[in-house]
Amino acid sequence: MAEEQKKGLEGVVIADTRLSRVQGDIGKLIYGGYDILDLADRTSFEEVIHLLWYGKLPNAAELDELRRTLAAEMPIPNALIAAMKAFPTAAHPMAVLRTAVSTLGMYDPEAEDGSPEANQRKAIRLTAKIPTIIAAWARIRAGQEPVAPRADLGIAANFVYMLHNAEPNPTEVSAIDVYLVLHADHGMNASTFTSRVVTSTDGDMYSAVTAAIGSLKGPKHGGANEAAMRMFAEVSQAESVDKWFQEEVKGKGRRIMGIGHRVYKALDPRAIVLSKHAAALCQRNNRCELYNVAKRLADLAAADEYFIERKLYPNVDYYSAIVLDAVGIATDMMTPMFAMSRISGWSAHIIEQWADNRLIRPRGNYVGPQDLKWVPLAERQ
Amino acid sequence: MAEEQKKGLEGVVIADTRLSRVQGDIGKLIYGGYDILDLADRTSFEEVIHLLWYGKLPNAAELDELRRTLAAEMPIPNALIAAMKAFPTAAHPMAVLRTAVSTLGMYDPEAEDGSPEANQRKAIRLTAKIPTIIAAWARIRAGQEPVAPRADLGIAANFVYMLHNAEPNPTEVSAIDVYLVLHADHGMNASTFTSRVVTSTDGDMYSAVTAAIGSLKGPKHGGANEAAMRMFAEVSQAESVDKWFQEEVKGKGRRIMGIGHRVYKALDPRAIVLSKHAAALCQRNNRCELYNVAKRLADLAAADEYFIERKLYPNVDYYSAIVLDAVGIATDMMTPMFAMSRISGWSAHIIEQWADNRLIRPRGNYVGPQDLKWVPLAERQ
Repeated sequence: MAEEQKKGLEGVVIADTRLSRVQGDIGKLIYGGYDILDLADRTSFEEVIHLLWYGKLPNAAELDELRRTLAAEMPIPNALIAAMKAFPTAAHPMAVLRTAVSTLGMYDPEAEDGSPEANQRKAIRLTAKIPTIIAAWARIRAGQEPVAPRADLGIAANFVYMLHNAEPNPTEVSAIDVYLVLHADHGMNASTFTSRVVTSTDGDMYSAVTAAIGSLKGPKHGGANEAAMRMFAEVSQAESVDKWFQEEVKGKGRRIMGIGHRVYKALDPRAIVLSKHAAALCQRNNRCELYNVAKRLADLAAADEYFIERKLYPNVDYYSAIVLDAVGIATDMMTPMFAMSRISGWSAHIIEQWADNRLIRPRGNYVGPQDLKWVPLAERQ
Repeated sequence: MAEEQKKGLEGVVIADTRLSRVQGDIGKLIYGGYDILDLADRTSFEEVIHLLWYGKLPNAAELDELRRTLAAEMPIPNALIAAMKAFPTAAHPMAVLRTAVSTLGMYDPEAEDGSPEANQRKAIRLTAKIPTIIAAWARIRAGQEPVAPRADLGIAANFVYMLHNAEPNPTEVSAIDVYLVLHADHGMNASTFTSRVVTSTDGDMYSAVTAAIGSLKGPKHGGANEAAMRMFAEVSQAESVDKWFQEEVKGKGRRIMGIGHRVYKALDPRAIVLSKHAAALCQRNNRCELYNVAKRLADLAAADEYFIERKLYPNVDYYSAIVLDAVGIATDMMTPMFAMSRISGWSAHIIEQWADNRLIRPRGNYVGPQDLKWVPLAERQ
């Protein structure tokens, strides 16, 4: 047929965006004009949120205002807490987050309002409430009472506070904060694209974000940091990293989770930042086993012809698993952490899509039978 | 830039499919090789489900087996009923369905199993349980106790039975059944595409279907029959249909909801079937006011140059609103009815996507600022 098939939509441009640019060939990521390497470690998650939503880094007054607005929206409805207490504790935490956000939509009187003003308010609500939901679930499934957010703390600090019900440790807070900054947006990734497809039907923001959470949950997308973590744990049980690499990767052709990326054919800049944090955290905690496994495995891959030829480098998921583990995030809570950051990008993309919306409806290429003759039930084979 | 932008992905082929083919230019729709006009009115929804899932119309034994399997899966967990009783009664019924399906996923021990066998079982579960959820919600929000499904009834009959808690009326059952047949699948529409994007991350079926429900909810997609219904009600309040058409459509340029379609540039074959059912139901019920409004409005459009030139014909949503209204479906429950049918197509597409899966990740075209210099907070404007 004349039409070219684009199964993965590789290289197909679906929208103009002012939010982020991924230059995979040179390993560069920018948010609203700023190199991610300039932002990381000196710009808070709230500043990045401001950049994504309003197109500029905030001045002190604007940042103060945004922090106050977010803090006011952090509490979640009691009805949602009650619903979550009834959820099965063994449920996948991303299924819990998906259901909680969908539930939240039923309690927002502005859920069906697609005006730019209502969408901006919903972006604030979702970005403020998702950390509360995630921390609440970590406690509820452990049989603990959820902790209400504090109005004096930012997103990262509040999250650590709600998780542990204790004054947040500054090292943990800054590790979480840099993690949130690095995961905020990343071009037209699958979950962001999912949120845009839903929005393209004039779909509401809760539907779009619920859908994006389901997409991020997939092992080929946000689920990858969890997969990397499980692999590090497996390798740490092996006789040696080198032996595991030889037997599993070279021998059986197993993929190293967190190495290689659809877009990056150079070192992922986010991995550079996170590997430094991972190294610092392991020193500080005096617990370097998994970091050493990850480091050695990355070194082995970096020296291997197969990986060199194919330009397969550690991606953002590789060291983020080590960082999150070092600050006490359970492995199966790592993808929800990703969502806690990416909600800022999703909501910004949803608002961008609304501003210039067109139904996203591709074609399928029908390859089934044609012109079959209908036969009554009794006569069918 | 060199890349062509495809905002709506018009004409972009994203997959081979054996499920359905939409030929919009000649107004033809086929399911697995059969013309929809051959299937409607002589093939039950269950037979169409068999065709979509297993690639053939069932013989008597296969149909019997499928009906038994579906009937066994129709009950929903008590925990879900309890959760739904806590939902706010004013919530959008599609937000309720989205949340209920997401909740259901937390109770399915096979939720995270992506094997073909588990996916087929989940397709059966979702197709069997969604009608039960919808009927339960119609009753719960009205303060009534939900009714458990009966093992001796098919999907359409069970739905009518659970909705009214009374022996189902055969006329209503056959109208619902033909509605379900006509909405089962429709190429790469936005909600089906949403489910494929989620699946492309190796996402689980509950995440994909929850996302698809959110997409179908959009006013430009499944929400269109509801919008058509609200418009018919508005027109019926006007002095005359002709006056409304002149003033609102010709005068103010208002769009007639349910007329025109992205793909069809000829009469939508589903609209042909449904207009006959709408006519028959209004005669039978002796309640033809809305049907007459719809008919007159369609006739006015059919004779108007603007509509003729642009090949704007009534689509599936136009008469389906009249049919569903005639069998007592509340206007805001019409989009859930669409989901009750389309789950058969969604699940078939999800299974097809799994069989030949590739991450769906398009590109954005970055048009924002570049190379901005980072400035400390205190120095920012």
